[in-house]
Amino acid sequence: MSLTADIFVHPNALCESVEVGCGTRIWAFAHVMKGAVIGCDCTVGDHAFLESGCRIGDRVTVKNQAMIWNGVEIDDDVFVGPGVTFTNDRLPRSPRMVFPPVAQRYADPTRWLRPTRIERGATLGARCVILAGVTVGAYAMVAAGAVVTRNLAAHSLAVGAPASRVGWTCRCGERLALVEANTWRCPRCSEQFKMDAAGECINPVQSY
Amino acid sequence: MSLTADIFVHPNALCESVEVGCGTRIWAFAHVMKGAVIGCDCTVGDHAFLESGCRIGDRVTVKNQAMIWNGVEIDDDVFVGPGVTFTNDRLPRSPRMVFPPVAQRYADPTRWLRPTRIERGATLGARCVILAGVTVGAYAMVAAGAVVTRNLAAHSLAVGAPASRVGWTCRCGERLALVEANTWRCPRCSEQFKMDAAGECINPVQSY
Amino acid sequence: MSLTADIFVHPNALCESVEVGCGTRIWAFAHVMKGAVIGCDCTVGDHAFLESGCRIGDRVTVKNQAMIWNGVEIDDDVFVGPGVTFTNDRLPRSPRMVFPPVAQRYADPTRWLRPTRIERGATLGARCVILAGVTVGAYAMVAAGAVVTRNLAAHSLAVGAPASRVGWTCRCGERLALVEANTWRCPRCSEQFKMDAAGECINPVQSY
Repeated sequence: MSLTADIFVHPNALCESVEVGCGTRIWAFAHVMKGAVIGCDCTVGDHAFLESGCRIGDRVTVKNQAMIWNGVEIDDDVFVGPGVTFTNDRLPRSPRMVFPPVAQRYADPTRWLRPTRIERGATLGARCVILAGVTVGAYAMVAAGAVVTRNLAAHSLAVGAPASRVGWTCRCGERLALVEANTWRCPRCSEQFKMDAAGECINPVQSY
Repeated sequence: MSLTADIFVHPNALCESVEVGCGTRIWAFAHVMKGAVIGCDCTVGDHAFLESGCRIGDRVTVKNQAMIWNGVEIDDDVFVGPGVTFTNDRLPRSPRMVFPPVAQRYADPTRWLRPTRIERGATLGARCVILAGVTVGAYAMVAAGAVVTRNLAAHSLAVGAPASRVGWTCRCGERLALVEANTWRCPRCSEQFKMDAAGECINPVQSY
Repeated sequence: MSLTADIFVHPNALCESVEVGCGTRIWAFAHVMKGAVIGCDCTVGDHAFLESGCRIGDRVTVKNQAMIWNGVEIDDDVFVGPGVTFTNDRLPRSPRMVFPPVAQRYADPTRWLRPTRIERGATLGARCVILAGVTVGAYAMVAAGAVVTRNLAAHSLAVGAPASRVGWTCRCGERLALVEANTWRCPRCSEQFKMDAAGECINPVQSY
């Protein structure tokens, strides 16, 4: 990947990365730092901020004001809602505080930086907050305003602060209905799912 | 309405709309898209974003970082607090995901775009989130950080996520006190209110 | 303090204040208004907004999109997380509403502006909201997404909306462990704390 004529950068945006894929559009007042990696056919909305060290797949939608830091990895087809905030430090202090344990902690990223991952096709609703170190599973849907503090299984529908799972969602985004024991079905696209043996997540009956 | 000398657009703002009323001021790093309609004597704070298709009345205060999308209608005299986020899709996915039900949904706005309305004089507190499809009644006050998932009656005071009504507010913003059976009064401006016959909202004793 | 060569202002930022301390860095699309006072060795992240009348100490980290208004005072060494929103009015209405009690209230700042203070070394987590009029004590840690509606004692660890205290934190940010009756200790830097006589906050055994 490299910056080519196929990439649109709004004249009021700031794109310092040379690792942006074809077809990606970066809108006004957004800032993509050097070293941020973005795939093809993404959109990055106004006032979004992508820090050096973040990695974003293909066809990802990053809505306005989302903040994506070093250590955050976002797979293909994810929807990052408006104002979504990632974090990469569970116990932040101002790094220049004159107190040796704080200075020591920030001298070495392995002591404070915790990676976060959002798997393929997931949705992070408006203004939700993702705590450092979690993984949000594929096609999960996090409700607007939620605070995600723990991992979420694939296809989870999660709400609240801290976020907890209240249902399951289809790839298409629709909430799944329990149609018989251990079988969920999407009312929109009819895809069917069953619980895995461990009872922790659902899987499509026909793999995709 | 048209852009005239009576409209102030900060040199660091971006105003592409020609439907902005007299006396309106648009501050730094704000972005008003073509087709966004704004009335007279409004203020649009720094880093706010007003998308094509939103409609805003007169004397509205849009504080910094508010995000107002296509499908959102805001009546006169509303206060949109800092960082308030609207939404216009209840089940968003990244529209370019390679999965036909998603592509079909986003091909037709009637399948995903749900309108939202904020009625005259209401207040939306700092960083609250308004889910697509709700109506917030006149002079309602939504507390900071709330997530509004259902309609709120006029004069409601609502808090939490999901937001629920915990009291009533006066036009002036003060919380109303229950002074006798079925009578609320404002301790600041003495306006009185009674419950309507359906028991769902209060109305001023003297209409305004 | 005055603007000198030791201050970095990103070419896409807007710094109108002449009261910024040495070593402070202001990043892209941030806006520091005239009359905002900032100490030395601070960082102000992208898209942050510092209004006239706010006061910020030394070595403070203001992350991206934080909004700091007139009436907010932030002591040395504080960490203001990404998207943190202060407020300075408990019952806001659009000030230009045509209703005399509202016009009267906004004609005099003593009727609506409530000061807020964040004491030395505290942390305000990502996207938290601080209601007007509260004091957050020294070295307190407010969790991501919390809504602070009441004062927090020094060294409090507070979560939720409304935020409540669920533990205590060390100066270094680590959560303190109760090691014997009325004695808490930091597992990282071994500092010890005891409850004060009133039973309302903890103090370090060796003063700092």
